[in-house]
Amino acid sequence: MPASDIERLIMLLARLPGLGPRSARRAALQLIKKRDQLLLPLAHQMRQTAESVRVCSACGNLDTKDPCHICRDPEREHSLICVVEEVADLWALERTGAFRGRYHVLGGTLSALDGRGPEDLKLDRLAERVREEGVEEIILALGATVDGQTTAHYIGERLAPLGVKMTRLAHGVPVGGELDYLDDGTITAALRARRPA
Amino acid sequence: MPASDIERLIMLLARLPGLGPRSARRAALQLIKKRDQLLLPLAHQMRQTAESVRVCSACGNLDTKDPCHICRDPEREHSLICVVEEVADLWALERTGAFRGRYHVLGGTLSALDGRGPEDLKLDRLAERVREEGVEEIILALGATVDGQTTAHYIGERLAPLGVKMTRLAHGVPVGGELDYLDDGTITAALRARRPA
Repeated sequence: MPASDIERLIMLLARLPGLGPRSARRAALQLIKKRDQLLLPLAHQMRQTAESVRVCSACGNLDTKDPCHICRDPEREHSLICVVEEVADLWALERTGAFRGRYHVLGGTLSALDGRGPEDLKLDRLAERVREEGVEEIILALGATVDGQTTAHYIGERLAPLGVKMTRLAHGVPVGGELDYLDDGTITAALRARRPA
Repeated sequence: MPASDIERLIMLLARLPGLGPRSARRAALQLIKKRDQLLLPLAHQMRQTAESVRVCSACGNLDTKDPCHICRDPEREHSLICVVEEVADLWALERTGAFRGRYHVLGGTLSALDGRGPEDLKLDRLAERVREEGVEEIILALGATVDGQTTAHYIGERLAPLGVKMTRLAHGVPVGGELDYLDDGTITAALRARRPA
């Protein structure tokens, strides 16, 4: 029933992850209400971002420059590459400040369902980096899902001939987490990997 | 950590209702991934909507024309006005197809907390419409909240001198709803308003 220009806005907003048809309608109304403070600035920033952002040809990160600021940073260790599924995972790791190496963003996992095979994950590029950049360790920071673990396993086999050390993130009790709310698999993993107190 | 153009996009997206910081990050990544299919079309549509949409000077609806398509429609009953809080409520009523009169969008409720007084609700305009357009009945379709009911009561008193008939939506069991999941207030209201079976 809304005018077609509002309807089209709602339909596009509803394609954002996290927004269903109802919240897309609410978002559209909010945008129209805050035309000058939100709608126009957001439209401008979207165009700006569309123009400026590129994929880093080295690691797959998103940045306004290629190579990205992480790959260009001489302070980051060149011997350490952390393999992640998505740029969002890279951001999550960067927020911790706990990792000082560089990344390799796969852009997804192997997935028969989504039709993503090995050739879609830039693994040739990863092997190339391992050979050319003196990489000593690859941390497979993939999700603890079936697809994530399948992908980790595949990468492990694929890169084994290069003789590079491969590690994965530890499983265990999340910091601040309560045992009572944890799934059995995590508790089992945390038990098996128990350490001296 | 994301580049500033991505960071700014995330900050603006996070101001949409329904999107927190985490979902704004996911939305931004999705937009960048689907640059040509989503990011640019959405930016374009936002600009387009910002330029074309106006508030109907008669009823407060949003449309590309003023008066809006409902106020212009000669098929809609002029004797019946449904008062709603927001344009979203108008859309909800229009989706039912059950109402063939016209609307009056208040743009909110009276709210001491949000500092909205009677002068913010376009009640003068409503009184004017009642006097000038031969309105016979006003349906107060406001939320069953404290603010909604306070506002309905206030409008009732304010328009009483005009001698127009005023009604409100029925309270009761939602169609398809189970008693077990309903709050006591709704069950009480449905009991009191019981009808012959």
